[in-house]
Amino acid sequence: MLVALSQVLKISPPLRQLADRGRNDKTEFLDSLIDLNQARNDRGKNMTKQNNDLEIKRHSLSHILAAAVLKLWPNAKLAIGPAIENGFYYDFDFDNAPALRRLKKDKTDKCETTPTRISEEDLVKIEEEMRKIIKQDLKFIKSELPLAKALAQEKKNKQVYKEELIKDLKKTGETKVSYYHLGDFIDLCRGPHLASSGQIKPDSFKLTKLTGAYWRGDEKNKMLTRIYGVAFSTKQELDEHLKLIKEAEKRDHRKLGKDLELFLIDPVVGMGLVMWYPKGAMLWKTMEDFWHSEHLKNGYELVRTPHIGSRKLWETSGHWGFYHDSMYPPLEVGQSLAEAQKGVKPKTKEEYLIKPMNCPFHVILYNSKHRSYRELPIRWAECGTVYRYEKSGELSGLTRVRGFTQDDAHIICTKEQAEEELKKVLDFIIYIFKSFGFNDYKVYLSMRDSESDKYAGNNEGWDFTEAVLEKVAKEKKLDIIKDVGGAVFYGPKLDFKIKDCLDREWQCSTLQYDFNLPEKFNMTYIGQDGKEKRPYMLHRALFGSFERFIGVLIEHYAGAFPVWLAPVQAKIISVGADYVKYCHQLAEQFKAQNIRVEIDDSNETVGSKIRRAINEKVPYMLVIGDKEVSSDKLSVRDRGEKQTREIGKQEFIEEVKEKIKERK
Amino acid sequence: MLVALSQVLKISPPLRQLADRGRNDKTEFLDSLIDLNQARNDRGKNMTKQNNDLEIKRHSLSHILAAAVLKLWPNAKLAIGPAIENGFYYDFDFDNAPALRRLKKDKTDKCETTPTRISEEDLVKIEEEMRKIIKQDLKFIKSELPLAKALAQEKKNKQVYKEELIKDLKKTGETKVSYYHLGDFIDLCRGPHLASSGQIKPDSFKLTKLTGAYWRGDEKNKMLTRIYGVAFSTKQELDEHLKLIKEAEKRDHRKLGKDLELFLIDPVVGMGLVMWYPKGAMLWKTMEDFWHSEHLKNGYELVRTPHIGSRKLWETSGHWGFYHDSMYPPLEVGQSLAEAQKGVKPKTKEEYLIKPMNCPFHVILYNSKHRSYRELPIRWAECGTVYRYEKSGELSGLTRVRGFTQDDAHIICTKEQAEEELKKVLDFIIYIFKSFGFNDYKVYLSMRDSESDKYAGNNEGWDFTEAVLEKVAKEKKLDIIKDVGGAVFYGPKLDFKIKDCLDREWQCSTLQYDFNLPEKFNMTYIGQDGKEKRPYMLHRALFGSFERFIGVLIEHYAGAFPVWLAPVQAKIISVGADYVKYCHQLAEQFKAQNIRVEIDDSNETVGSKIRRAINEKVPYMLVIGDKEVSSDKLSVRDRGEKQTREIGKQEFIEEVKEKIKERK
Repeated sequence: MLVALSQVLKISPPLRQLADRGRNDKTEFLDSLIDLNQARNDRGKNMTKQNNDLEIKRHSLSHILAAAVLKLWPNAKLAIGPAIENGFYYDFDFDNAPALRRLKKDKTDKCETTPTRISEEDLVKIEEEMRKIIKQDLKFIKSELPLAKALAQEKKNKQVYKEELIKDLKKTGETKVSYYHLGDFIDLCRGPHLASSGQIKPDSFKLTKLTGAYWRGDEKNKMLTRIYGVAFSTKQELDEHLKLIKEAEKRDHRKLGKDLELFLIDPVVGMGLVMWYPKGAMLWKTMEDFWHSEHLKNGYELVRTPHIGSRKLWETSGHWGFYHDSMYPPLEVGQSLAEAQKGVKPKTKEEYLIKPMNCPFHVILYNSKHRSYRELPIRWAECGTVYRYEKSGELSGLTRVRGFTQDDAHIICTKEQAEEELKKVLDFIIYIFKSFGFNDYKVYLSMRDSESDKYAGNNEGWDFTEAVLEKVAKEKKLDIIKDVGGAVFYGPKLDFKIKDCLDREWQCSTLQYDFNLPEKFNMTYIGQDGKEKRPYMLHRALFGSFERFIGVLIEHYAGAFPVWLAPVQAKIISVGADYVKYCHQLAEQFKAQNIRVEIDDSNETVGSKIRRAINEKVPYMLVIGDKEVSSDKLSVRDRGEKQTREIGKQEFIEEVKEKIKERK
Repeated sequence: MLVALSQVLKISPPLRQLADRGRNDKTEFLDSLIDLNQARNDRGKNMTKQNNDLEIKRHSLSHILAAAVLKLWPNAKLAIGPAIENGFYYDFDFDNAPALRRLKKDKTDKCETTPTRISEEDLVKIEEEMRKIIKQDLKFIKSELPLAKALAQEKKNKQVYKEELIKDLKKTGETKVSYYHLGDFIDLCRGPHLASSGQIKPDSFKLTKLTGAYWRGDEKNKMLTRIYGVAFSTKQELDEHLKLIKEAEKRDHRKLGKDLELFLIDPVVGMGLVMWYPKGAMLWKTMEDFWHSEHLKNGYELVRTPHIGSRKLWETSGHWGFYHDSMYPPLEVGQSLAEAQKGVKPKTKEEYLIKPMNCPFHVILYNSKHRSYRELPIRWAECGTVYRYEKSGELSGLTRVRGFTQDDAHIICTKEQAEEELKKVLDFIIYIFKSFGFNDYKVYLSMRDSESDKYAGNNEGWDFTEAVLEKVAKEKKLDIIKDVGGAVFYGPKLDFKIKDCLDREWQCSTLQYDFNLPEKFNMTYIGQDGKEKRPYMLHRALFGSFERFIGVLIEHYAGAFPVWLAPVQAKIISVGADYVKYCHQLAEQFKAQNIRVEIDDSNETVGSKIRRAINEKVPYMLVIGDKEVSSDKLSVRDRGEKQTREIGKQEFIEEVKEKIKERK
């Protein structure tokens, strides 16, 4: 489902998929507390569940797409065209292909100099061409060629990307390649395909969009043009899918974030760096206050740590050596205090990193004094803003950013306490999900690959923690999906993926054992027996990141937040200038009861004020005129309702307070 | 008073004073929202108020100190020795002077190789030597020498620092210099001095400490040894001062911060970067919650902005060009999204800065849509953590740091609204001060130098804002101290300096007009007349920075915070293991009422548990034994009291809640 979503969000998932190929498992560490890379895993999992026939059909459609494009742009170069979830795509290089309209109108073969030689409007034209091919019921015919011959053929056809693919195949020891013919169209391909193009219902597919995509997903390569299509067995299924996409577009948090004045991402400040307008900041604060008070109730203590720290911290933790590509580069400054005090001239520079995670700071706080078993479990929580240098092409709204605030906590405990602590965290996660209206979620248990020796800690520790994670998850009746070999090197983990109202999955909460940091930083405590021991360490985040969780919330509720979360809970609308004073009195009464209100006393008509409040998705609209001023009654229009209702002021206040209290 | 304080805090003010000479007025901008440089200004002001006789005496003592040092270390080199507030100092180079004990014991003249040739213990010995000189009642005799002769004399005496000073004097066009003789001691000096050393009461001064100090305050120069002394007219005055210092030492927030487990600054993480233990973080959160709710009550809205942003922001604002020395260097990364989308290979790098102030982000949020007069005044507040690269020698605990959280707000309004907004801010500042127990403060009005043309904005704007600031301050009956020419270039300001219980002044709140950013970022709104106008912009901070304000709070209360601020409000002490369960029940009852409690159920004696709670400065200690378990009574020992009192549980809860509510 994730792919569908990312399509909707215009993340261009296959670009990501390709880009991910370039990633190695080094990134796993940085992906820790929030798995920023979630789509990659999900895609694989979901793909295997795909109906195989449908996948063959989709792949066949990508060939039909390429054939149609070549009909219209004979000089286009073909790259690759796989089936993906819900559809297919094909990557083209249009650099030496003239623009479609020019081709049609001028009948010249002159090259365009603009980089865009194809526009969204052309998709309809291509679809027409594809339907012609379907109507012709052309057969997919396989042939084989020795590599050298294939190479010569592609060279002749100036298909440079195919050439490159064949050269790569050569390196793997292949001696021949297969081609699929479709009329006079021919494409390098392993297959399989349908028997003929006529097996496709002409109304069961649709080309959806154009995006840029680097050849092989590598930013260093040329940017190609990717054409996406969706395809299902029937028109009905296609329509359902398109409806879902439309609904998701309406819920797009980037659009709503702007419309509702929640947040701003401005290239002038920097991509992936989020600024929050008052309404977004209020939503955030409401969440944070709730988070804080629940954490205190659950026996956590708060800590605070800075946003920069010596590079040495991450050298010690091991992150710097392996993952510095995904971090912002170091800040090099000045001289050390010790040097200054000794009168030594600055020779070596200090190097600071903007923190990619909070953990080392919490460890330093822990290590700053001798710890006894009596102090354990320690539960330290911090909403810490961290920064990671995600590639610009991978950024998307609030869900993939460069600066995000983890609702982080570290639990440092004895082995004996680990199970109990785990249970508490699971209860906490489920409670938080419910509080925000998420009642459906999937739980993934990432375990080690027992063949590999890449893991920190020892087998005993892994056996114990994997078993405990599984046991506790089962006790809580969580339907876990095991991912053997999927664990990060420092410990096993449970990841929670929320299902939102469009049935899309979102990685949010995570709960992880860490065998690495306690060793690397030599964390100890004095046990009851007076001996020095190594504590167990758990990382956990409930929201994952505030940014992403808010992004998910916006889409889940389509911006119509439940009363307790709504930045403005009631809009007070004056019928005319005479009632403004009363509106302000009323506002003060609401504010005194911690109800967030806004007054609309503009000179516009009541109708347009109500329309604005509807667009702002405010839960309650209170229209204030003669009747309201002269009585203790209110005319309330509830969000989504067309009629107003009459209710006593005090009664209404109690109603709202109750909704806030119940988080409904 | 600031100097006394910084002595107490071991900031070594004259080092700062010298260092400040190296600063130019470029730093004024960075010193904006919090005047990190406050001591410099204060010192000048206070010095002029000094009793002149006392200053002469103190300066004379610095000569006597130098004479005494040369008696003991004949090869020591002399640098400079001024009078300062409360006393004097002299800077020496002991590099070729043997250690005192070695001189005495071995009678050899062999050089030490260790950098420290003098220790705190030697101060008594030097004082003895000084008292001998006083007893001899030697006359201070002035003589004059042509520059060339003076230079030859210093060269002969190997007094390299004096040589350098004379060379500098030469550059200024001086032709002769004056010397002061004191017995066989002679020192380059302008004077004046006392008539003779006998005019000093031998028990009216004391050498207090040794510190390192760069020659001329420049980190690039050699580190010299500075000997500090304090001196007053009488022994009684000296004793009073020493008592004050002792009291201040007990209140030293750096010591208490450690003892009370409030915060940690660890060189492993980085100097000037503060990490907060749970108790410190709770104190912070209590302050922040209060701050938030008061801001919402006062019509502010919250915004949130990231900790890094494009260097371009600060190029536009003008900060980068002038003040980059005081910022952390840029982070250089990746390529722009636009480039990526166009398929352009990264040529130019993006550069980000870790923010030294929040302002440009708020401006970007303002500018992100067209604004109308109807939206003004906008009051946007943010507790934003900013980072500035202060020199390591200038760092001190929480009061001078590299990362600090401004309780920042920007008010964007029309000219007509400016006065009313100002009044509201002043009321707000005074209210906040009172809430934290500060009832005494000084207010400085920094105005422009009408001769200078360095200022942003126009004369009309300055005339208006300076007049309004003065008018409003007078209306609020604030006793302002005018600093003509003291304004930063972007606008006039009011600075509030809190007086704490030791009568020390601390720069905290500030309220500033800004004519620069609205121009540089072309901020506009559409006025009632439909025309585009430039808004007025106010910066203001109430605490100044959380870090500094907490530092001041710790010292003001000597760590014994009022109930509403105390991280732990009541300590529940079990008399024995049998009562632990009841302690936990009790704790839950308190927590349910938002009272912060901690249980001490250790196996130690009640006496030692009480002693610990006293050291932790917890407001209430509840001793739980048989009587308490079997009744609804509590035995409460109030902080500072030696007796316990009996009180009903419910009554006690109400009492504590009342104290919290009243912030007493």
